[in-house]
Amino acid sequence: MTAPEPAYVAVDWGTSSFRLWLIGRDGDVLAERRSGEGMTTAARTGFAEVLESHLAAVSAPAGLPVLICGMAGAKQGWVEAGYLDTPAALADIPAAAVRIPGAAADIRILPGLAQRDAAAPDVMRGEETQLLGAAAQLGEGDHLVCMPGTHSKWVRLSGGKVAGFSTFMTGELFEAIARNTILSHAIAEAGPISGDNAAFRTAVTRMVANPALATSQLFSVRAGSLIAGLSPVDAKARLSGTLIGLEIAGALSLVAEGTPVALVVSGGLGTLYKDALAAAGISPAVIDADAAVRNGLAAGARALWSL
Amino acid sequence: MTAPEPAYVAVDWGTSSFRLWLIGRDGDVLAERRSGEGMTTAARTGFAEVLESHLAAVSAPAGLPVLICGMAGAKQGWVEAGYLDTPAALADIPAAAVRIPGAAADIRILPGLAQRDAAAPDVMRGEETQLLGAAAQLGEGDHLVCMPGTHSKWVRLSGGKVAGFSTFMTGELFEAIARNTILSHAIAEAGPISGDNAAFRTAVTRMVANPALATSQLFSVRAGSLIAGLSPVDAKARLSGTLIGLEIAGALSLVAEGTPVALVVSGGLGTLYKDALAAAGISPAVIDADAAVRNGLAAGARALWSL
Repeated sequence: MTAPEPAYVAVDWGTSSFRLWLIGRDGDVLAERRSGEGMTTAARTGFAEVLESHLAAVSAPAGLPVLICGMAGAKQGWVEAGYLDTPAALADIPAAAVRIPGAAADIRILPGLAQRDAAAPDVMRGEETQLLGAAAQLGEGDHLVCMPGTHSKWVRLSGGKVAGFSTFMTGELFEAIARNTILSHAIAEAGPISGDNAAFRTAVTRMVANPALATSQLFSVRAGSLIAGLSPVDAKARLSGTLIGLEIAGALSLVAEGTPVALVVSGGLGTLYKDALAAAGISPAVIDADAAVRNGLAAGARALWSL
Repeated sequence: MTAPEPAYVAVDWGTSSFRLWLIGRDGDVLAERRSGEGMTTAARTGFAEVLESHLAAVSAPAGLPVLICGMAGAKQGWVEAGYLDTPAALADIPAAAVRIPGAAADIRILPGLAQRDAAAPDVMRGEETQLLGAAAQLGEGDHLVCMPGTHSKWVRLSGGKVAGFSTFMTGELFEAIARNTILSHAIAEAGPISGDNAAFRTAVTRMVANPALATSQLFSVRAGSLIAGLSPVDAKARLSGTLIGLEIAGALSLVAEGTPVALVVSGGLGTLYKDALAAAGISPAVIDADAAVRNGLAAGARALWSL
């Protein structure tokens, strides 16, 4: 029995994380690397050097093609990979990849997507590859795809095309509010929150019912702690539920009622969003985000190199 | 002609500011003091000492009664002055003032208001005195009173009673988002914004039309700067308009359409809120906040000391 032959290398290169997979001819993962050498670090230490060190660590044969998605293609990244404009067919993404000039191997970075709409300009970089990977599981028709995170993306897919999308600053706002406002006193020392928490679910349903009260509900976290004995964990749950509920209300406002919702997510955030969507009366199809990005890179590699 | 005789001293003692007025028998302001010795500073240096130094500076006769409103009555303040619970008659506020024990003069701190509602617990301290002062100008009937600031208060007044109120974290969120999120890049170096700014007005009307998209509109400030050439000042205006517009949408959702709106405000924030309300189709009655708090303290002093 011979060792499986590597066919290409897939890389998900985010702002603060780097993940690499060595993929075989049959599509199997032969080796995997994860590190904190995201764009921020690599911009200092060198993108080529970071990639080289991980290729060496998995004993990748010289000259193996490499397909990259994510922030490595940003203006502050390795080589700018630009954007495809919406409405954009997912199948058009691979051909728009940008090749790293001067490299011995064929190394390409996939583009992001841009929505050049004066009322709602928006960008994504990395999530388009997850979408490409998730598309096979979703099938044709209309879908609303939620990709939670620091900047949660909600994508309106129609017949394999990205019709439009909206980024909600949920994760980043949670951190900024929990750390840098008067709510920090109410939340201090709270451990992790669970979607089972009644304060979380109530906050979600309140936002779906009346999203206009969002910043007042945020102050009620402080007031509840002052005059109603709101515990730190319930205070944190209420902050989280208010921001996630506001996001859900906003995303749902942009699609026809009954549009199927898919949740592309990995880890603990998945449980929280499933519980939040349940509180809003929605049962999403759940797709693993790690698998989706690998599948998206695989679809890109097949299209580019006839693998 | 003799010098006018002082009747009492009025003090507005906030978190970060201290204001004192020496008031004559005829209600005239005989002397005024302003300093940064708010609750935060006075909690370290001593409340009695701060008050004494300013009384000496205006040559207040010994034993003159002093009426205080604001954070000096908070738990972390001089003496806790508690809260009146909503629904609360404004006329009942003075009698609930708490006297400083052991002081030679009659020094009293007015209470705050508390809304002990599980869905929307809320508190105010200082604004109740502005309301007491503004009430005479508003007259009976139903009013929605907006008091903009770090924590904007919107009060539902009905027949001289505070039926309920909502605090929106607008000012504090603006600072936290502008300083501690990715939007800081888009806004850096922007000067002061004006309510005339089209990006400000558009952001307000968008929030009134669809408040659920608030945190997506916030991200569009970043995306607009990346792909649509949004200028720093327009980025700042869009952030401000989104937060103020969300606040207006939330407050209006709690009252019957057509309820008269009053704006109790001083300084540049007044112009911004007037322009925001105009963009939302509302022409408020405008009441000066500085005069309102003095009038409220005067109403309290008359009720307490038959002046």
